[in-house]
Amino acid sequence: MTIRELQSHISGREKGRGKNASFLKLMEEVGELAEVIRRNHRLKTNQSIKGTVEEELYDVLRSVVALANAYDIDLEKCRKLKERYQDRRWK
Amino acid sequence: MTIRELQSHISGREKGRGKNASFLKLMEEVGELAEVIRRNHRLKTNQSIKGTVEEELYDVLRSVVALANAYDIDLEKCRKLKERYQDRRWK
Amino acid sequence: MTIRELQSHISGREKGRGKNASFLKLMEEVGELAEVIRRNHRLKTNQSIKGTVEEELYDVLRSVVALANAYDIDLEKCRKLKERYQDRRWK
Amino acid sequence: MTIRELQSHISGREKGRGKNASFLKLMEEVGELAEVIRRNHRLKTNQSIKGTVEEELYDVLRSVVALANAYDIDLEKCRKLKERYQDRRWK
Repeated sequence: MTIRELQSHISGREKGRGKNASFLKLMEEVGELAEVIRRNHRLKTNQSIKGTVEEELYDVLRSVVALANAYDIDLEKCRKLKERYQDRRWK
Repeated sequence: MTIRELQSHISGREKGRGKNASFLKLMEEVGELAEVIRRNHRLKTNQSIKGTVEEELYDVLRSVVALANAYDIDLEKCRKLKERYQDRRWK
Repeated sequence: MTIRELQSHISGREKGRGKNASFLKLMEEVGELAEVIRRNHRLKTNQSIKGTVEEELYDVLRSVVALANAYDIDLEKCRKLKERYQDRRWK
Repeated sequence: MTIRELQSHISGREKGRGKNASFLKLMEEVGELAEVIRRNHRLKTNQSIKGTVEEELYDVLRSVVALANAYDIDLEKCRKLKERYQDRRWK
């Protein structure tokens, strides 16, 4: 799945929140990621992804994408603009 | 209670963690604060503080103090040094 | 300085922000703390506190207190309520 | 670019950090995002992406992907596992 497909996929799967609520939700997910990292809960073969670093890292990715959707931001376009800016600076 | 008393009070009440685990714990508490802010769960008269902005804000304060303890940092001394630095700059 | 004195001290020293801006400011300070922890910039004798773990940890404390002020929350009262709740649970 | 291509793209473009340093870097980027959101600095036509919500949101995405790389986690696989878990629960 491309980043753009992920943005529409997530806006289809989830109730959209406002900008502020989306940022707060991102911080909730980062907090849950911090906990499973601290407890070192990792995904084991044939076991549920629930409550693992793997789950929470994807949840943080998902909330970043949902925040981009709330701001109507195209992350693929941002990647290209940022890398063009970096490449010019590093020439 | 002074900030210094709070630092020894918390080190007496809680199992000390290492620097890295203390920072991760701070992020957990910030995540829980973000959730109760998003859900606007506030303390009501004669009700438990559990699961409210009031509880989670104190928990963030507590984890900041525990992180200072992990780094052996005196927050009262930092306050004075920072304000001396600011006052000189704003003269 | 007590926690209550710190709350009025900071509201006297700094322009008050709204609830949302105060939470965003807390996250800015946590980000700056993460950077100096990652770079391990620590306070050295007779040197400025600027850009050190000591400075940024106090800045996080300050922004937690400013957020409490924005919500009109008495952190000393929250400490007592939370500890009474904990002590009852651990009896 | 797919999520998997983004993971290898970023590991090719950037010096890999350890797990702990990658989490701290994520928090730095979240802090910078909080600042530009608070200041409402948005990308304007024909202007640099530098110091905008657009730039910092992509930087947070990039640091989430770099953190996944540090943990050797395949985010596309996590997406599928999480959605299978959710779909079973919501049946």
